[in-house]
Amino acid sequence: MIGETFLAGTAKHISVAGRVLGGGRLPLVCIPLTAGSRQKLLAELDRILRLQPNLIEWRADYFGGLADLPGVVRLARELQSAAGDIPLIFTLRSVREGGQPTSLDDAGTAAVGVAICEASAAGFIDLEMSLPQLQFAQLSRAAHDNSVQRILSYHDFEGTPDAAQLLAKFALAQQLGGDIAKVAVMPKNPDDVLTLLAATLCASRQLDIPLVGISMGQYGAVSRLFGWMFGSSITFAAGENASAPGQLAMSDLKMLLAAIDRDR
Amino acid sequence: MIGETFLAGTAKHISVAGRVLGGGRLPLVCIPLTAGSRQKLLAELDRILRLQPNLIEWRADYFGGLADLPGVVRLARELQSAAGDIPLIFTLRSVREGGQPTSLDDAGTAAVGVAICEASAAGFIDLEMSLPQLQFAQLSRAAHDNSVQRILSYHDFEGTPDAAQLLAKFALAQQLGGDIAKVAVMPKNPDDVLTLLAATLCASRQLDIPLVGISMGQYGAVSRLFGWMFGSSITFAAGENASAPGQLAMSDLKMLLAAIDRDR
Repeated sequence: MIGETFLAGTAKHISVAGRVLGGGRLPLVCIPLTAGSRQKLLAELDRILRLQPNLIEWRADYFGGLADLPGVVRLARELQSAAGDIPLIFTLRSVREGGQPTSLDDAGTAAVGVAICEASAAGFIDLEMSLPQLQFAQLSRAAHDNSVQRILSYHDFEGTPDAAQLLAKFALAQQLGGDIAKVAVMPKNPDDVLTLLAATLCASRQLDIPLVGISMGQYGAVSRLFGWMFGSSITFAAGENASAPGQLAMSDLKMLLAAIDRDR
Repeated sequence: MIGETFLAGTAKHISVAGRVLGGGRLPLVCIPLTAGSRQKLLAELDRILRLQPNLIEWRADYFGGLADLPGVVRLARELQSAAGDIPLIFTLRSVREGGQPTSLDDAGTAAVGVAICEASAAGFIDLEMSLPQLQFAQLSRAAHDNSVQRILSYHDFEGTPDAAQLLAKFALAQQLGGDIAKVAVMPKNPDDVLTLLAATLCASRQLDIPLVGISMGQYGAVSRLFGWMFGSSITFAAGENASAPGQLAMSDLKMLLAAIDRDR
């Protein structure tokens, strides 16, 4: 199986409470939840669970009820409970990094994340490295104190920085205490895809934490299918809706990974 | 469809008698014939035609009857006739470049190729750039004089030369009059796969002829599936047997390309 061979040597495993996700197979597949209301989210989750992802990301910036903080925490708990063994990633993506517009400013965004952590309502939380320092520190501490794993992320929807800059972003994530480093960038040409893959591969050899390296958009499909070979531990697939450009449909991704596996 | 979009901008179309192969879609898929006898080859071809490849390569180094030169030519004609519109590539791969051992020396190998060309028994002929100069010149002239397109090839089953060397091989193929340049190399790590893809992309921008860039083996699957994005016009898939390490099964390759296409 993919990831059980020497091929995935640089992609690292991710564990939750001592359990290695995916039974040791890489890449892990994460499906985002993008519905806007509690009822629709629960229904979306129900359908997505049938696709058997390894992780589920609640993209809370799509959610209409962010103003009700206790309600958000309750809903995260409900989602995590319904997902059972499959860990929930709580992500409130900012507009700055490609998310949906919400009613919250940086302080409000951090407050939601802190509440989620204090309630241990998710296994992972996405922390943008571009958050203002104060909010970043609050969120990071709340996650750490409540054993919520931190995915320190960097997104560029406009282009692909050079390899040295990408490598610096991965390294910064580890330096800032991240449990996982995530870099997602937009290629303008096939060269940019190679740059992202090379930087991810290099980072996976230099750093200790698991990485996620994504080249988005149409050119980036290579990274979503083969990123594991270049040190990326998670690939994001579209369940019902893509939450970022270039995500493959989960059904296709599973079929593709199985075929690649079979032919090796 | 793949290749009809801007994405395959650097991969060039291949035409036979004024007809663009694959109806303008890239990559073209080529399946090798590897049976050892006339009867088995005709049966193999019959089954392979159902997979609807764009090209069929007769790997004549697998054929047991090479000593009978007129018989080889007759058989090539039979295969081309049975394949109908699908052009035949005649390839007598040398042991030096990863082929099967045959009874022929370089002179004998060239004589077979010359006879195939003089009979116009194939649409394409594979010419190894490592052939001794005399035999290379004989074969190249015979192909040219009989309008058989020349695929000038370079293989390295031991490793992947650096990008500058790979680029030089592609350029040499054009310089020597090749209609198509083919470079197939073995990666020892994921870095080598990126090197092959980058070199193919660079060559596809600098050169005028269509290219085939292949990274073989288990790491190389990326190049077989996504090579078209980096300027490679043909991907080789296994029909019944793989003729080189890393070839994906044709059924899987078609499914994979369709899924990638659908998700874009």
